Amino acid sequence: MNSIFPSSNEIIAAHKRIESFIHKTPILTSRSIDAITGTKLFFKCENFQKVGAFKMRGASNAILSLSEQELNKGVATHSSGNHAAAIALAAKLKGVKAFIVMPNSAPEIKKAAVKEYEGEIIYSESTLTSREAELEKVLNRTGAVFIHPFNNNHVIEGQATCAKEVFDELNFLNFIIAPVGGGGLLSGTCLSAKYFSPHTKVIGAEPAGADDAFKSIRDSKVYPSVNPNTIADGLLTSLSDKTYNIIKQHVESILTVEDNLIIEAMKLIWERMKIIVEPSGAVPLAVVLKHRELFAGQNICLIISGGNIDLKKLPW
Amino acid sequence: MNSIFPSSNEIIAAHKRIESFIHKTPILTSRSIDAITGTKLFFKCENFQKVGAFKMRGASNAILSLSEQELNKGVATHSSGNHAAAIALAAKLKGVKAFIVMPNSAPEIKKAAVKEYEGEIIYSESTLTSREAELEKVLNRTGAVFIHPFNNNHVIEGQATCAKEVFDELNFLNFIIAPVGGGGLLSGTCLSAKYFSPHTKVIGAEPAGADDAFKSIRDSKVYPSVNPNTIADGLLTSLSDKTYNIIKQHVESILTVEDNLIIEAMKLIWERMKIIVEPSGAVPLAVVLKHRELFAGQNICLIISGGNIDLKKLPW
Repeated sequence: MNSIFPSSNEIIAAHKRIESFIHKTPILTSRSIDAITGTKLFFKCENFQKVGAFKMRGASNAILSLSEQELNKGVATHSSGNHAAAIALAAKLKGVKAFIVMPNSAPEIKKAAVKEYEGEIIYSESTLTSREAELEKVLNRTGAVFIHPFNNNHVIEGQATCAKEVFDELNFLNFIIAPVGGGGLLSGTCLSAKYFSPHTKVIGAEPAGADDAFKSIRDSKVYPSVNPNTIADGLLTSLSDKTYNIIKQHVESILTVEDNLIIEAMKLIWERMKIIVEPSGAVPLAVVLKHRELFAGQNICLIISGGNIDLKKLPW
Repeated sequence: MNSIFPSSNEIIAAHKRIESFIHKTPILTSRSIDAITGTKLFFKCENFQKVGAFKMRGASNAILSLSEQELNKGVATHSSGNHAAAIALAAKLKGVKAFIVMPNSAPEIKKAAVKEYEGEIIYSESTLTSREAELEKVLNRTGAVFIHPFNNNHVIEGQATCAKEVFDELNFLNFIIAPVGGGGLLSGTCLSAKYFSPHTKVIGAEPAGADDAFKSIRDSKVYPSVNPNTIADGLLTSLSDKTYNIIKQHVESILTVEDNLIIEAMKLIWERMKIIVEPSGAVPLAVVLKHRELFAGQNICLIISGGNIDLKKLPW
């Protein structure tokens, strides 16, 4: 089964391939949050990434891995979140068309981001069935290549470059913690740890109100995400075949945490570090706040996955 | 008159003196805000400074410039803002006592910051008369040394180190823009530009609702700040003798801007750069948004003075 996973060479090649499409994001520290948690934390700030989220890495690598012929007719995806903006911007930078299927009900700010990057929006109902049907129509009409937000090896290789950058700088980490929704970031983080920092344990951080990945790994089968209920709006989807198989084999554990601690973690980062993280990006710190005994005294990298949030609807 | 100003050697010495008490803050850029303003902007991020504001520089230099004998009995100030927290933390790091006179009505978050740094708070009424009377009592009772928030050469030298760090890195700036309240930061910026980057013009950025510095420079006399009305709560005070004299001689101009543009600038920084700035810290960008024709195509450093804001009371 291992042979179908992206290799270390593929991740290294992905990093080179996307270099001019992404920011090498900073790793920040906070003495006051270290004091509060009793740990030594390193925050990998993908909130400063282009489009405000790590999704730019996977989207760029997927697009740049296509042939000129494939790119001719453009790329397409369905997403109401950061993957949509990332596909639109990466396509724009590469000079190809992007078709984005979004539910009518998507937040205006998300629609505006796709439009700013000149992506063409095709509206659907908010059900998965309607979104998939609209996407099918778009693919048939345009001949564009579908880029799945996480069930795609090139996307996973791209997301893996985030942890690779961390390990290029820090060789003494006991843990690296990534949030888990569909598992693109977490599976990429697992692979980079395996290849570039095998002594570092990988933890998935998941909202208790959307704990399908926790249950999937526990029971060794992919559960769908049914009626997820959490403020972490980037983590609502379930694992895919590809992400499940990588995570199952390489993750140390998936830890869940309740929304009140996610909000507390998010506020702590805003107040102490003066940076803006979205709820999903604060889930790793929330897990550290919840499991103090497990992490006491350890060197831990937390992946701040993104910083896109409606500033008029804050949870405090 | 020039002879009473801090010299370039004094600013260089201050920078060495406070090195271990402060962060060398990053200078960030934003392609999207450059595109919006038609300029090339460099944001000097004192929101990432210790205590979340540039005030840590002046407070540290003032305390570290005292003799052991003077420090024996501690230091004191009256302030309800960032200077209070900065004095408390710098005193704590130096191992001396800090007495802070604050009005009863000061925000809880400001009181909490001083307490966290183990400063002793003495409460007063909110009038200046009451604050000064309480301070007088504290000085008589304790023998502590009073450190004025800006009418103090050591404080001005400390604030000057912020622009000095900018000029150490960037030698091609057409403008540097600092917010102006009491004028500690602006006067220090004027001196560092004069000594370390004489081709760079210094602009003071002031809220239209608290435009006493604009009028003072225009009419060549220090006006008191009467009933200031602006969201930029760090910029309510008037200039002092020392800051007025430096600014009068060296500033290119003071530009005022209305609160609606200050809020727009602040939101732009939060959304595009994913960093938290307080209203006062957004006034320089607001000035650029207002005076587009003046700044078009120029290389401009904006000093983001701080990032302390009540996250439950945002202006949008």
